[in-house]
Amino acid sequence: MRQAGRYLPEYREVRQQAGTFLDLCYSPDLATEVTLQPIRRFGFDASILFSDILVIPDALGQKVEFKENIGPVLSPIIRSAADLDRLRPDEAIDRLGPVFQTVRNLSSSLPKDVTLIGFAGAPWTVATYMVGGEGSRDQADTRLWAYAEPAAFEQLIETLVDTTAAYLVAQVDAGAEVLQLFDTWAGSLPEREFERWCIAPVAQIVKQVRAKYPAIPIIGFPRGAGLRYADFAQRTGVNGVSIDVTVPLDFAKNTIQPNCAVQGNLDPLLLVSGGAAMTQEVARILQTFDDGPFIFNLGHGIVPQTPIDHVAALVDQVKGVKG
Amino acid sequence: MRQAGRYLPEYREVRQQAGTFLDLCYSPDLATEVTLQPIRRFGFDASILFSDILVIPDALGQKVEFKENIGPVLSPIIRSAADLDRLRPDEAIDRLGPVFQTVRNLSSSLPKDVTLIGFAGAPWTVATYMVGGEGSRDQADTRLWAYAEPAAFEQLIETLVDTTAAYLVAQVDAGAEVLQLFDTWAGSLPEREFERWCIAPVAQIVKQVRAKYPAIPIIGFPRGAGLRYADFAQRTGVNGVSIDVTVPLDFAKNTIQPNCAVQGNLDPLLLVSGGAAMTQEVARILQTFDDGPFIFNLGHGIVPQTPIDHVAALVDQVKGVKG
Repeated sequence: MRQAGRYLPEYREVRQQAGTFLDLCYSPDLATEVTLQPIRRFGFDASILFSDILVIPDALGQKVEFKENIGPVLSPIIRSAADLDRLRPDEAIDRLGPVFQTVRNLSSSLPKDVTLIGFAGAPWTVATYMVGGEGSRDQADTRLWAYAEPAAFEQLIETLVDTTAAYLVAQVDAGAEVLQLFDTWAGSLPEREFERWCIAPVAQIVKQVRAKYPAIPIIGFPRGAGLRYADFAQRTGVNGVSIDVTVPLDFAKNTIQPNCAVQGNLDPLLLVSGGAAMTQEVARILQTFDDGPFIFNLGHGIVPQTPIDHVAALVDQVKGVKG
Repeated sequence: MRQAGRYLPEYREVRQQAGTFLDLCYSPDLATEVTLQPIRRFGFDASILFSDILVIPDALGQKVEFKENIGPVLSPIIRSAADLDRLRPDEAIDRLGPVFQTVRNLSSSLPKDVTLIGFAGAPWTVATYMVGGEGSRDQADTRLWAYAEPAAFEQLIETLVDTTAAYLVAQVDAGAEVLQLFDTWAGSLPEREFERWCIAPVAQIVKQVRAKYPAIPIIGFPRGAGLRYADFAQRTGVNGVSIDVTVPLDFAKNTIQPNCAVQGNLDPLLLVSGGAAMTQEVARILQTFDDGPFIFNLGHGIVPQTPIDHVAALVDQVKGVKG
């Protein structure tokens, strides 16, 4: 929720100046400006780099387009061992140079008391776009290919683990103070696949990043993982876990908060409707997690039709309680 | 998985004879034939009525179309208290007469040892189509309307509870021996909304059906409910719970099976890829639930590209173990 987006008029204005959405992500001046917008407007306590999880496939050499009203479209899709040979992991970090420039800009221009958060997509979620070619309801194409050719899929995941770890390390080199890993589509994975394609790759990334930065805080977000949040919190090595809107508060308090900071989980749609229902739910969330490590947030991204004054009211309420 | 579908050539042939998909659901002779097809081919132990969860909005007077490559489209959408006045709950059961005729046909033509399962969509899931107008990834339109106008949304849910209970009772009148309630989109609901829009309406339906048929077995399927499956199993009054592909087996064994029969949960995509990976997972499922009440099934519907010989191999394996 701390990222700029279409709900802000000042964002829509800058968005028009850039060509494609990826052009915006790769223009350090514009990306820096857009990252700072919500900090100026709302005085957030932390700032998250403006970028997208799909810069990784782009940097690996796959074509990534963001189409109006459709979403991301990647081509050609990855669906065989031979397709993997087209990827260029050795060039990826160089191609992501503009992102690191944005992080450096932010590191020098943000107020000292505002934490700078870098991020990346987790391997499973990024793979679903690379294999599926677009967003989907249940990631069926990717799950099916992983069943049919587990060795080839494993190779894709390994490429993503190494590239993502290097990408996150470079963000810390440039000034990021906290890292976040988004596994947006973790919720579609069956039990054993969750272990193999969510927990294991995230744990490897955490290990690789910690090899260079042992103390860097890392927050994971296995969206939709349900009761498997407990395993994720205990076994990936992350310091914090973002919980989605469906996670019952007491479950998170009892099974996640003893091991990790909890981040979440107001429904972004309740922020759209606002009013007393929102205020009550925010109070319930703050009260539940008050005794342990906690970062207030939405349970998913802010939606374009969100009224700006609802965001301001939310920030007031949270700051009033958390001080 | 016991329902006929596009993976069967004999189904595709009958489908061509009917006009629209709803025409097929409302043609007792064709719907009976299609229901019997998988029984003839595979010798399943149970038969599920061929129909669709969206016959309820259709019977209530909303226009329901099934569009090729898009899915169901309902119009006009329900988005205000005034829209609810257009619904005709008093006429719904009469309009569903052809479905009951299909159930009667099946009751007399199925082998005695094949259990006839009737079904309906649960109120939340059916409401998401009535309010959203189509399928969606996160049911945002419906969740948003429920936040904005909870009283109006509650009225829609109550209409669906009463109509669905009457519909299920009439299916039992016609010969259904087990009932199933599909809450396909239960997984998108936050904690308190899950309580209000999934558990409470399902519990009301169970109560209303049991008022006439105290001993009828009822299976609920709150797909994607994660750890909230435990509450669902304990508090709706159902006798059985279908678990989706993401539910860890030990969780279901320890928290659901003590109260309810468990049904599930092979990934339909593993049935597409088949081979040793499928065989091993089927064995693991059978072994886990062997000691308690259990119905083998997929964790979601069978997909069109499923090879028929994989289904036959699966049936052989399950019958070999379960006898």
